[in-house]
Amino acid sequence: MSKLLNDVVSELSKLPGVGKRTALRLAIHLLRTDKTEVGMLSDSITRFRNEIKYCVRCNNLSDGDICPICADKSRDGSIICVVEHVKDVISIENTSQYNGLYHVLGGIISPMQGIGPSDLKIDLLAENIAKGDIKEVILALSTSVEGETTAFYICRKLSGFQGLKVSSLARGIGFGDELEYADELTIAHAIHNRKTI
Amino acid sequence: MSKLLNDVVSELSKLPGVGKRTALRLAIHLLRTDKTEVGMLSDSITRFRNEIKYCVRCNNLSDGDICPICADKSRDGSIICVVEHVKDVISIENTSQYNGLYHVLGGIISPMQGIGPSDLKIDLLAENIAKGDIKEVILALSTSVEGETTAFYICRKLSGFQGLKVSSLARGIGFGDELEYADELTIAHAIHNRKTI
Repeated sequence: MSKLLNDVVSELSKLPGVGKRTALRLAIHLLRTDKTEVGMLSDSITRFRNEIKYCVRCNNLSDGDICPICADKSRDGSIICVVEHVKDVISIENTSQYNGLYHVLGGIISPMQGIGPSDLKIDLLAENIAKGDIKEVILALSTSVEGETTAFYICRKLSGFQGLKVSSLARGIGFGDELEYADELTIAHAIHNRKTI
Repeated sequence: MSKLLNDVVSELSKLPGVGKRTALRLAIHLLRTDKTEVGMLSDSITRFRNEIKYCVRCNNLSDGDICPICADKSRDGSIICVVEHVKDVISIENTSQYNGLYHVLGGIISPMQGIGPSDLKIDLLAENIAKGDIKEVILALSTSVEGETTAFYICRKLSGFQGLKVSSLARGIGFGDELEYADELTIAHAIHNRKTI
């Protein structure tokens, strides 16, 4: 095989979910793509990796020191939604139902993986609350044991702030889910937290 | 969303089989990858697109004017295996069962897609046979109508070469295929071309 082809296939197949066969298909696709387009692809990859920053306030991905969400004066600065990862910010933003700020922990407390509270941006969250006029913190974390542990830890950490409301996302049956296939814990939770129509 | 992240997601999602969600997952993966590694990925992409050549003899992808297979003196220069695409060369090479040369047509005759014989490297094949001491041409094309048409065209084109054997890959039941799920045409072919054990 040509060395150039070999190189690109071996580099592409290092990406998650991309095997040798897919990598080859992508390489052949690149051949049929305009050189300028391919240049834009590789440029965007290098620039993203080398120039991306983390927002000093909320730890979200950002082009500058402060991310576009924190910098947006039209957003409600009194609510902070705490999430594990950047992709969770995007998921919530896609709903267009939330107009507050975010705080990206960068992970979740997981003793099994050796991730403790000090590895996450929990202190930064407390600092931001101490500094600003925050009324509510929404915990939008995983429903796993690790998620519950992290939520518990954050709740305790924030218990000193008088008048601060700490909430978590509602649990229940998701839209489109069938009762038949929902697990017992979810159904039990949904019964206990039933809503009057 | 940060512009850098937006750019890389939009560029990655132009790749075949990569949607916005996968592109985001790949971008997050790049963040966790060493900068040098990411540099190697984007370099390999640009270099592949800008520096790759087509072998002047067989139309295979090549770093130089002649591809490594054509340049390899240990290979049998009297047999040419005709394939549609570069990826077919790799598939056959992976079997380690063939030691001859290749000829990459660059496609298949397809009136529906407006691809005629002149769009493929069929004349180059005839030239190579006229020049060299070729004893056999193996047609390793698709089993589609287009593949059969292309094979027929090439056969007629090469009919002038005295003593040249033109063969095609054996058709039959593939290893691991179950008879129950094989189509009628394949089974019919396999019966007609049955082999004495």
